[in-house]
Amino acid sequence: MRGIDALPVFPVTAHALPQGHLEVGGVDLVDLARDHGTPLYVFDEETILSVARDYQRAFETRYPADVRVVYACKAFANVSLVRLLSEEGLGFDVVSGGEMAVIEAADAPPGGVYFHGNNKSAQELEQAVAAGIGRIVIDSAHEIDLLEDVLERMDRRQEVLFRVSPGVDPHTHSHTTTGVLDSKFGLPIQTGQAEEAIVRVLTSRRLIPVGLHFHLGSPIFELEPYAQAINVTLDFAALMKARHGFEMREFSPGGGFAVRYLVSDEAPATDAYAQAICSALVEGCASRGLDLPMLSVEPGRVIVGRAGVALYTVGAIKEIPDVRIFVAVDGGMGDNIRPAIYDSHYEAALASRMADAAATTVTIAGKYCESGDILVRDCALPATEPGDLVAIPVSGAYCLAMSSNYNASPRPEVLLVKDGQARLIRRRETYQDLLAPDMV
Amino acid sequence: MRGIDALPVFPVTAHALPQGHLEVGGVDLVDLARDHGTPLYVFDEETILSVARDYQRAFETRYPADVRVVYACKAFANVSLVRLLSEEGLGFDVVSGGEMAVIEAADAPPGGVYFHGNNKSAQELEQAVAAGIGRIVIDSAHEIDLLEDVLERMDRRQEVLFRVSPGVDPHTHSHTTTGVLDSKFGLPIQTGQAEEAIVRVLTSRRLIPVGLHFHLGSPIFELEPYAQAINVTLDFAALMKARHGFEMREFSPGGGFAVRYLVSDEAPATDAYAQAICSALVEGCASRGLDLPMLSVEPGRVIVGRAGVALYTVGAIKEIPDVRIFVAVDGGMGDNIRPAIYDSHYEAALASRMADAAATTVTIAGKYCESGDILVRDCALPATEPGDLVAIPVSGAYCLAMSSNYNASPRPEVLLVKDGQARLIRRRETYQDLLAPDMV
Repeated sequence: MRGIDALPVFPVTAHALPQGHLEVGGVDLVDLARDHGTPLYVFDEETILSVARDYQRAFETRYPADVRVVYACKAFANVSLVRLLSEEGLGFDVVSGGEMAVIEAADAPPGGVYFHGNNKSAQELEQAVAAGIGRIVIDSAHEIDLLEDVLERMDRRQEVLFRVSPGVDPHTHSHTTTGVLDSKFGLPIQTGQAEEAIVRVLTSRRLIPVGLHFHLGSPIFELEPYAQAINVTLDFAALMKARHGFEMREFSPGGGFAVRYLVSDEAPATDAYAQAICSALVEGCASRGLDLPMLSVEPGRVIVGRAGVALYTVGAIKEIPDVRIFVAVDGGMGDNIRPAIYDSHYEAALASRMADAAATTVTIAGKYCESGDILVRDCALPATEPGDLVAIPVSGAYCLAMSSNYNASPRPEVLLVKDGQARLIRRRETYQDLLAPDMV
Repeated sequence: MRGIDALPVFPVTAHALPQGHLEVGGVDLVDLARDHGTPLYVFDEETILSVARDYQRAFETRYPADVRVVYACKAFANVSLVRLLSEEGLGFDVVSGGEMAVIEAADAPPGGVYFHGNNKSAQELEQAVAAGIGRIVIDSAHEIDLLEDVLERMDRRQEVLFRVSPGVDPHTHSHTTTGVLDSKFGLPIQTGQAEEAIVRVLTSRRLIPVGLHFHLGSPIFELEPYAQAINVTLDFAALMKARHGFEMREFSPGGGFAVRYLVSDEAPATDAYAQAICSALVEGCASRGLDLPMLSVEPGRVIVGRAGVALYTVGAIKEIPDVRIFVAVDGGMGDNIRPAIYDSHYEAALASRMADAAATTVTIAGKYCESGDILVRDCALPATEPGDLVAIPVSGAYCLAMSSNYNASPRPEVLLVKDGQARLIRRRETYQDLLAPDMV
């Protein structure tokens, strides 16, 4: 495979310049890496915005009531990115006080923010309420106690959703399967725990029940689990209405929308997800006599995944005859732990020779002192030399978000490119940053 | 199991106080957690020093030439810890410029420092040479070029070891198996690449060849792989002496020494490792007519593993009837990714009720938004309530080292305890720390 054959999984603005360099957002990535150093993460603004708008369009055109597209910050929480998406009218899904702090630093409207998580602390709940957060998504009975205490102390009321566990398996990695009964997340419907939570909140002076949410896991390549879980949840909503007068004014089927990592991957189109979700919801509400709730969806990976390109410089190349050629780069499991933790697969290209034919099969290893630090196994590249620039696509989600300082390695610089300009949205860490907490 | 039944894997000073609290280093951990907050990592100085001294004693008493015990910083690189071990006379194994910066910040003598890694950059090599590092461990032919350039530019000479790949499988996790032929690490002996490197360095004006090093992986629960790899390497050393006049003045069989994570684990004693290594080396050199080299060993995990205790506060408890009880704590895969990445197993205890009988089997989940964020599966605890303090032993190695800010979570505070006193050796991160690189 040539680099250009992998363009379908690079950002939408990616193409090869005449001399063979990879350009994204109108910026030559070879120049960019030379000027900014590597490892370097580059995000393409047009890809982010086009996916965000595509999600808004796909759901708004299919759903006859209100729709809110909510970016799941855990994929990559960055102040500039939140500002950008906020200007597009997206809401935000946060899972910690830290992510709430990112939202606040970006001055995004707190009313469009949803606070998720299986174990929110009283301190985090207080921070969120104080910030004027739109929704807190109740995950357990314990959280109702905590939140009531917090609201009582603050003399405030708070709109909440309930995260229910519908007991549906989305067939993704066991580490990221969340909607099954045996999960740390959510209030199981089938055990009666979801109903108990609703009954409690219906009589609460402080909590205002607004709706239901589930999240099946990520990434989900099938559509049927969404329809199935929507039907389970609507059955439950109808029952709660009949039994307790609960009105589901908002409904969120979570996120988990898949992206193509490999050219050979097939991920459903935005329209396919929207069609599956909207039709199940519209038909399901009609057949059960439920009013259409506001629909919120929470794409994370899909908003930023394809937009991100990781750039690395090749160092040592080790050819072990009849075994393997290791091409070592200057990043690895510290900035992208996904191959090590989920056995994730990526394409790779030489950013300076996108049109060259592949000459050999190599394994792209990181620089971390661990054999598991392999970024791409058995990948076809043109003849590669020290100093070459390797570009790995679909690096926008869950790479920087999970990045560590393993081996005392500073984390990469991050640039946002658009119309030939690159804007710094996260500076490179320094040794001084790493040492600061130790200097006590 | 009661908490006290897990004491054999807690630090050597750990015991239960009369009211049932866990004490380490003379400090009541329940008090400590109340005063400092959780998640909190506590290191016991006596455990660290006793293991370090045990390694020095075990090798020095068995080996008739010089011995150097070298702490592998990648297990946990911390300025105060490096100072402590430096005062004990240990050297240091670093794998990056960042770890070198930790050594420099701690004012440890650079002459006892070894620079490992499969893809050192020219910048890192220059930093290490400028600092006066004792040994650079050559991992590839490419590194010889880089280092010669750097030394030429700086007009310096540098003692080096060669990391050879002996082709021995230590039977540990594939992510951490490093001494086999199909590895990104080292110069393979059997392909002739190790010999080529030695021949080149023997004629170098800048590099001074001092000896050989291998590292098999970690943790290694068997002794035979060490003896086997020593014999392969000594055969090679004898051949290089005969063919090229290479004198192996230093020899390092690396580290990888195992620790008990579970009470039911059986890890070889220090003396067993020392016996296996020293006897193979002494006998192997004698039978091949080689002078005894200086012996350096590189324990990392074993020096700090048992010394560390992770403390978490229980939040939400979710009992799913007939399925599982999830006990959620306020840390998880952000501060300890080992269960998610290596399927590592841990004991756990309630730090406030060490003597209470177990009442139930629970799964200790973290607070991160991911189903894979489980710290301990199916562990027996006394009846547990929100606010209880969970202590996880053997948390000193590769937890903080690999820790991330996933879900925008600040990383924990770290304390060193001794004789009833707790000393801050790393402050807790703040939201401001997390946001700082984004504020551009």
